[in-house]
Amino acid sequence: MYEDLKQRVFEANLKLVEYGLVILTFGNVSEVDREKGVMAIKPSGVAYDRMKPEDMVVLDLSGKQVEGRLQPSSDTPTHLVLYTSFPAIGGIAHAHSEYATAFAQAGEEIPCYGTTQADFFPGHVPSTRELKEEEVLNDYEQNTGKVIVERFKHLDPTHYPACLVTGHGPFAWGQSAREAVDHLLALERIAKMALLTRLVQPGVKDLPEYLIKKHFERKHGPKAYYGQRKEK
Amino acid sequence: MYEDLKQRVFEANLKLVEYGLVILTFGNVSEVDREKGVMAIKPSGVAYDRMKPEDMVVLDLSGKQVEGRLQPSSDTPTHLVLYTSFPAIGGIAHAHSEYATAFAQAGEEIPCYGTTQADFFPGHVPSTRELKEEEVLNDYEQNTGKVIVERFKHLDPTHYPACLVTGHGPFAWGQSAREAVDHLLALERIAKMALLTRLVQPGVKDLPEYLIKKHFERKHGPKAYYGQRKEK
Amino acid sequence: MYEDLKQRVFEANLKLVEYGLVILTFGNVSEVDREKGVMAIKPSGVAYDRMKPEDMVVLDLSGKQVEGRLQPSSDTPTHLVLYTSFPAIGGIAHAHSEYATAFAQAGEEIPCYGTTQADFFPGHVPSTRELKEEEVLNDYEQNTGKVIVERFKHLDPTHYPACLVTGHGPFAWGQSAREAVDHLLALERIAKMALLTRLVQPGVKDLPEYLIKKHFERKHGPKAYYGQRKEK
Amino acid sequence: MYEDLKQRVFEANLKLVEYGLVILTFGNVSEVDREKGVMAIKPSGVAYDRMKPEDMVVLDLSGKQVEGRLQPSSDTPTHLVLYTSFPAIGGIAHAHSEYATAFAQAGEEIPCYGTTQADFFPGHVPSTRELKEEEVLNDYEQNTGKVIVERFKHLDPTHYPACLVTGHGPFAWGQSAREAVDHLLALERIAKMALLTRLVQPGVKDLPEYLIKKHFERKHGPKAYYGQRKEK
Repeated sequence: MYEDLKQRVFEANLKLVEYGLVILTFGNVSEVDREKGVMAIKPSGVAYDRMKPEDMVVLDLSGKQVEGRLQPSSDTPTHLVLYTSFPAIGGIAHAHSEYATAFAQAGEEIPCYGTTQADFFPGHVPSTRELKEEEVLNDYEQNTGKVIVERFKHLDPTHYPACLVTGHGPFAWGQSAREAVDHLLALERIAKMALLTRLVQPGVKDLPEYLIKKHFERKHGPKAYYGQRKEK
Repeated sequence: MYEDLKQRVFEANLKLVEYGLVILTFGNVSEVDREKGVMAIKPSGVAYDRMKPEDMVVLDLSGKQVEGRLQPSSDTPTHLVLYTSFPAIGGIAHAHSEYATAFAQAGEEIPCYGTTQADFFPGHVPSTRELKEEEVLNDYEQNTGKVIVERFKHLDPTHYPACLVTGHGPFAWGQSAREAVDHLLALERIAKMALLTRLVQPGVKDLPEYLIKKHFERKHGPKAYYGQRKEK
Repeated sequence: MYEDLKQRVFEANLKLVEYGLVILTFGNVSEVDREKGVMAIKPSGVAYDRMKPEDMVVLDLSGKQVEGRLQPSSDTPTHLVLYTSFPAIGGIAHAHSEYATAFAQAGEEIPCYGTTQADFFPGHVPSTRELKEEEVLNDYEQNTGKVIVERFKHLDPTHYPACLVTGHGPFAWGQSAREAVDHLLALERIAKMALLTRLVQPGVKDLPEYLIKKHFERKHGPKAYYGQRKEK
Repeated sequence: MYEDLKQRVFEANLKLVEYGLVILTFGNVSEVDREKGVMAIKPSGVAYDRMKPEDMVVLDLSGKQVEGRLQPSSDTPTHLVLYTSFPAIGGIAHAHSEYATAFAQAGEEIPCYGTTQADFFPGHVPSTRELKEEEVLNDYEQNTGKVIVERFKHLDPTHYPACLVTGHGPFAWGQSAREAVDHLLALERIAKMALLTRLVQPGVKDLPEYLIKKHFERKHGPKAYYGQRKEK
């Protein structure tokens, strides 16, 4: 069962490798099937070049494993919290990609220095607070999801497709596993350009609000005119 | 119609990917046919690995679409302003390449620190002023072209093959779509080396004027002796 | 004899190239067979693209060459000291990879800025003191091993899978040649992200101890739950 | 005639591309045949992917073209000065590789921060003084060679296999065209690691003299023990 879902999740995980976002067994991607109430995710600690579609693990949204012989990614509880709290998202991607992780390790949000970021985020790339000791000792991965949700109290996850977890790295999401990976790649490029921009000019300021809004709205929302009309 | 033009524009767009200048659907390249009064450009938001030559969109220089079923790049009005204002150019390339975009986001021109830059630009890589709110709210893409033209009031676009748009990224041009892409690649390398040079030596000074002039003139102008004699 | 050992060492050496950790003839990887009391190592100064499995050199742990027509890597005495002093390790990898070597050249340990490092090291990436003149003039390669061992007086090499040699570069180890190379790759990524983190935020602080411990223990030790259960 | 020489020079030029040292038509490599008194060099401004062995240009050491229909590299007079002044070298490679060029543009020699550099250079990577206006206006390329030779007044070119030309980029040499390219690659890696080292630790000091000497002499000179014994 769930062959299509597992195939899509498998392919999206391999995109992490193709995009240069992961090494070794780092990273994980999942996709949810809202109708069937299940998600598929990468198995834990398996090498990308030996992974097969049937290795993907299927769980219901309470975390009960419903298909697959392997252990799911150790970050599974984080994915489950996000799917439960953000009903509009369909796929999640996580990696320790170099530049986004650098901002996460520095505990800094990424200011919006240019239109590339504004094409994806109508402002900063958000980041979480640090987890407290008790949040790390008990249900660590679940609490990782909860601090993301806490940071999104006043943010719309369909407008902001990613969050940096302080001291850890980025989680990105989208309509599908593949879109989540594409957003993670865009975030990595945005993070790299933000750091390079600061190295050129340490005192650089954010883009004016009207330009951020313009770029975001030309790709998203009712008056978007970037891309092709969605047919049907 | 316009099969050759569309083929050349298609191939030049793929060079953006091969050169590592773009990810996802970022970037766009066009070429003008001055005799027929039309330009061909990449369609908006289409993935490079699914794009075909027949997907290129052909418009006349007033912006009227004359061939192609897809929407043209959302940056089309910028290209049209440049073709109209700079009669000597034949192709335009735009990307959010990492290092050139870093200088654009920092709002800085690239000083001429070495002969690599002097081989392409007889001085700084120019950059535009920031667009005003009203220029962003109305005819944004057209105004992007206009601030480039404004910056070139005293510059010759056949001597300076690119401009940084502040807060956005680089536009480059040349005799053809392919040459425009090659200039964008050269600019990216120049921008990277300029930032690295500053990291080595924050107080670095521009190359002496006589050396800039020498390198520029050995590749360009009546006494050029770089490359092979153009036959015929 | 030792065909399997030589084949594994050969393949692990080629991984250095595939992972982008070496250029030219830089780097070397070895693996020990504890039962037979021998190790196999890359020959000295041989190009990776001309190297064959039978070129691997086999020595006993006193350094006597027992198989192979070529000279072993000039770093062989360093490997021998490590195998003798660290009975729990099975493979060693050395390269002048860019970011780990930058920290080694700077004479700095790598602070633990994020969970990626904590997944591999329960704290700093250790580095040695500088070698003294007499340690360089006599038995230099052996003394390189000895300063690593000296640095590990209070550290467990199965917990800390690598050490930076000041002014030189990283040595990494693991259960096998291949795992040693994987640890060297992880270290290179960790070192790069540590430098990028400092460039984002020069005053960045180490991860809290409880988060380092959590991440390390979820991959290692009795309560590890990352990866798949080891069968058999 | 000179088919072997042209083939070797052709292949060495393509190595520049494979090693990522050049883009577009940047860079050039030559090799001298001392017995026949000729050198072969890349033609000027020809794309690497269209270049053929028979396109290589052969000149005698006075600069007279003796074979080939194309114009030789515009840097040919620099190569000729070096072959004439440094009788022990057999091949020369030039590129505007990113990190070596950054040091050249900054007008700085590369201090010896680690053993990677000491394996190739017994001290700093030398750089030239800036060319004077009259040296640029007349016989520019020849004078580029002359300032390198001037810098080597007290240096042995068989010990120091490269020089940075201030404001321009690196020239490297070796026994053959291929070895010159390998030295250029090593220099690029050395330059990158030197910059990264300074970013880790701005106050970093040079390696102690005794360690530089040790590493250089274990690869070069009468007591070298790196690599395989040269047979016959």
